[in-house]
Amino acid sequence: MKYNVLTLYPEIIEFYKSVGIIGRAVESEIIDINAVNIRDYSKDKHRRVDDEIYGGGAGMLMKADVVYDCVSDIKSKSNAPVIYFSPTGKRFDSEMAKEYAKLDEVILLCGHYEGIDQRAIDLVVDEEISIGDYVLTGGHIAAMVFIDTVSRYIGDVLGNNESLSDESFENNLLEYPQYTRPEEFMGLKVPEVLLSGHHKKIEEYKLEKAIEITKKNRPDLIE
Amino acid sequence: MKYNVLTLYPEIIEFYKSVGIIGRAVESEIIDINAVNIRDYSKDKHRRVDDEIYGGGAGMLMKADVVYDCVSDIKSKSNAPVIYFSPTGKRFDSEMAKEYAKLDEVILLCGHYEGIDQRAIDLVVDEEISIGDYVLTGGHIAAMVFIDTVSRYIGDVLGNNESLSDESFENNLLEYPQYTRPEEFMGLKVPEVLLSGHHKKIEEYKLEKAIEITKKNRPDLIE
Repeated sequence: MKYNVLTLYPEIIEFYKSVGIIGRAVESEIIDINAVNIRDYSKDKHRRVDDEIYGGGAGMLMKADVVYDCVSDIKSKSNAPVIYFSPTGKRFDSEMAKEYAKLDEVILLCGHYEGIDQRAIDLVVDEEISIGDYVLTGGHIAAMVFIDTVSRYIGDVLGNNESLSDESFENNLLEYPQYTRPEEFMGLKVPEVLLSGHHKKIEEYKLEKAIEITKKNRPDLIE
Repeated sequence: MKYNVLTLYPEIIEFYKSVGIIGRAVESEIIDINAVNIRDYSKDKHRRVDDEIYGGGAGMLMKADVVYDCVSDIKSKSNAPVIYFSPTGKRFDSEMAKEYAKLDEVILLCGHYEGIDQRAIDLVVDEEISIGDYVLTGGHIAAMVFIDTVSRYIGDVLGNNESLSDESFENNLLEYPQYTRPEEFMGLKVPEVLLSGHHKKIEEYKLEKAIEITKKNRPDLIE
């Protein structure tokens, strides 16, 4: 998978490329992250990319021509879909992430300030997605959430440190509580059944606890 | 607001501190971000922080003692609440962000690998929150989403580039489409009413468009 990230802050995407599980996946060439500076496409001598909003209101908007030229340049080398991160988009979740993980390449368009001129969105964006019901300072943070989440479903990215089975949102359940050594810590013991070696009972216990926590914290997932 | 971020990847939090709107807010001392390396609290000679999971299953879990010692050290200097990022937590949104923005200090605990031994969570965590219905490679990404979102509601952070009024999720509506210069781009014109200077008509148009996009993309917000 190749992620093209179009943003005003390519430097944090470049740094993100080198950290942790994502860093190892980039190094192993399982994924590729190409950070593109939208500002490089400004024709303004001051490299401006934003302007005031028609109809009034505080804040600045990214200009249609700069965004259009940037996306067009990347599209000229690829026919990957253009995904724009916006609070008005479809809400991103694990199931969507698994579908995106099947693609070879995506173009991730990050908005900044008040967002992007609607005409650029109408002309170049294929899908608008929202990572949650809140507003960020910029789409670069959403891009990291997207890359992180999608990459976990790409073979060999996780290695041995993490597992995709039994995790939250599989089968519409949250994950059960987990324990590691020592058997007792600050007077708190690991539940007996997890030490029993009795596989059937352990599986029953995990399912029971997963249902319990889902009913308590996210009853909407079970309904 | 002071954000203490407890993670295995403090280096990306340090970098994040220097970028964009958040970078300027840190420089102006409106917010403070203190990145703490959980690994510094390992007593193991190899600085290990994780171990295998009781009851089987692939992946590694962060050890209770290391997390407990790290959080306790930060808590000894502050009585700020400890927030743990986990897919099993309460779903984070704009309203929660506004409440957190009123606090002077928070401790953000980031899980990595399969998560954290449940006993450490039971002993030190005050609130578990989830930034969305998906799983990340680590809580450091969720911490950036949290800081980004909460900081927007802290006075003077946004400056003149962005505005909090009329944005998505205010009054349970998504934001209407926005336009900037030029009046025509690639044959697409800015809607006439936005150029009219007629404030009442402009406000009516914005509300109508906000309702339209919310009904189309997120009918659940209106219900």
